[in-house]
Amino acid sequence: MSLDNIRIVLVNPIYGGNVGSTCRAMANMGISDLALVTPLNLNMDEARKMACHAVHILESRTEYLTLADAIANCGAVMGTTARDGLYRQHAKSPREWASKAVEVARTGKVAIIFGREDNGLSNEELALCTQVIQIPTTSDFKSLNIAQAVLICCYEIFMALGTYEPIIEKSPEAPSEVRERMFVMWRDTLLRIGFMKEDKADHMMQGVRRILSRGTLTIDDVKILMGIAKQAAWAAESKGKKVVEDIIEM
Amino acid sequence: MSLDNIRIVLVNPIYGGNVGSTCRAMANMGISDLALVTPLNLNMDEARKMACHAVHILESRTEYLTLADAIANCGAVMGTTARDGLYRQHAKSPREWASKAVEVARTGKVAIIFGREDNGLSNEELALCTQVIQIPTTSDFKSLNIAQAVLICCYEIFMALGTYEPIIEKSPEAPSEVRERMFVMWRDTLLRIGFMKEDKADHMMQGVRRILSRGTLTIDDVKILMGIAKQAAWAAESKGKKVVEDIIEM
Repeated sequence: MSLDNIRIVLVNPIYGGNVGSTCRAMANMGISDLALVTPLNLNMDEARKMACHAVHILESRTEYLTLADAIANCGAVMGTTARDGLYRQHAKSPREWASKAVEVARTGKVAIIFGREDNGLSNEELALCTQVIQIPTTSDFKSLNIAQAVLICCYEIFMALGTYEPIIEKSPEAPSEVRERMFVMWRDTLLRIGFMKEDKADHMMQGVRRILSRGTLTIDDVKILMGIAKQAAWAAESKGKKVVEDIIEM
Repeated sequence: MSLDNIRIVLVNPIYGGNVGSTCRAMANMGISDLALVTPLNLNMDEARKMACHAVHILESRTEYLTLADAIANCGAVMGTTARDGLYRQHAKSPREWASKAVEVARTGKVAIIFGREDNGLSNEELALCTQVIQIPTTSDFKSLNIAQAVLICCYEIFMALGTYEPIIEKSPEAPSEVRERMFVMWRDTLLRIGFMKEDKADHMMQGVRRILSRGTLTIDDVKILMGIAKQAAWAAESKGKKVVEDIIEM
């Protein structure tokens, strides 16, 4: 499984809460290898609290003295930056680099590096990177919280992996033939209840079609709409009769 | 500007830190309209701390008694859910709904709703939604921190807006003619310094071409590679001469 080959590296993290939130974000996206480069007096209670159900990632983290040590066995080394400048002008977005990360992770380790909460990565640290990542943001507020930056990168890698299967509606989209039977029933009913006269029917049905065709109509949806048409026609015909009064009283 | 029409709605948020982190995530993506439905004793110091440079979003938030009030003037109403089930089976990912949100936001208000930290949105609250969003996650850890969920949705909307311009390298990609001149220089130099003999030159240059063609080569890159070839040839020819000894001693 190539997500096992993705290593998240935090350089000199300060806030335990951020490290914990990083663990939770990683867990959400199926990534579990966390490496810290010389963390600075982390508040571990805060870290555990924010890690939530991902405490196992926090507990199994590795720690290194230098960034070079933390990435020694990694093939692709991707560094994140919010700043522009000479050493950052070849940066690409996480979405652009995600497929590269997934490709490399099939056979070897990939590191995604996040700099200090206050100061990012130095030029010397960026020089160790084979790729530079810049997360798209509005130009007024470029600096993301570090756990938020980790989430975006992990999310794009998870999406690029292509294993996520969108939810599929249990009821399939209604085929044209079924939909058209429903429109015939509506036309008939709208005439019977006196909502429209025959000479205006085609025009009015265009409007009804437009309303009901804006989204997808599943077979279950069409069954509901057929039921409404049927019942309205029946109720209109039974008008004044005992049975209907019972229904109205319900 | 259509991002002004995107409203982030948090239902009964508990943790001030999460509300603050939400503000920062919104600011990163250029979204600023925050509505809270009956927040529960928020720790505002925590909120301000996590909002960081986005305190203005926190301060200008609106508060409502009910979800219906918070979304009363919104056309598209998109509710987020991590759970599956009958009322959630038509959920789509934020990437799928983002273009819809941007389209509606050109002319009217769009609400993106996030449920309670512990319990999400109720079926009654989801019934108010015109769209249901489910954020792709691994099946083991579906529950994202609320500010993380807000970030993913805001990020996808920001990306769908298409205003983000990827960084463009100042030096354009080298045209073939320039690249080929560089390879001629390298061939010549590798022969002169005795790295290869004429009979193996074509084979070896295939390897060099492969290495240098894996990524993009800009004009600036090609200039560096030409300079190396030139200097190596010069250094090899000046071997033993005084000038070269100076260079080696440097």
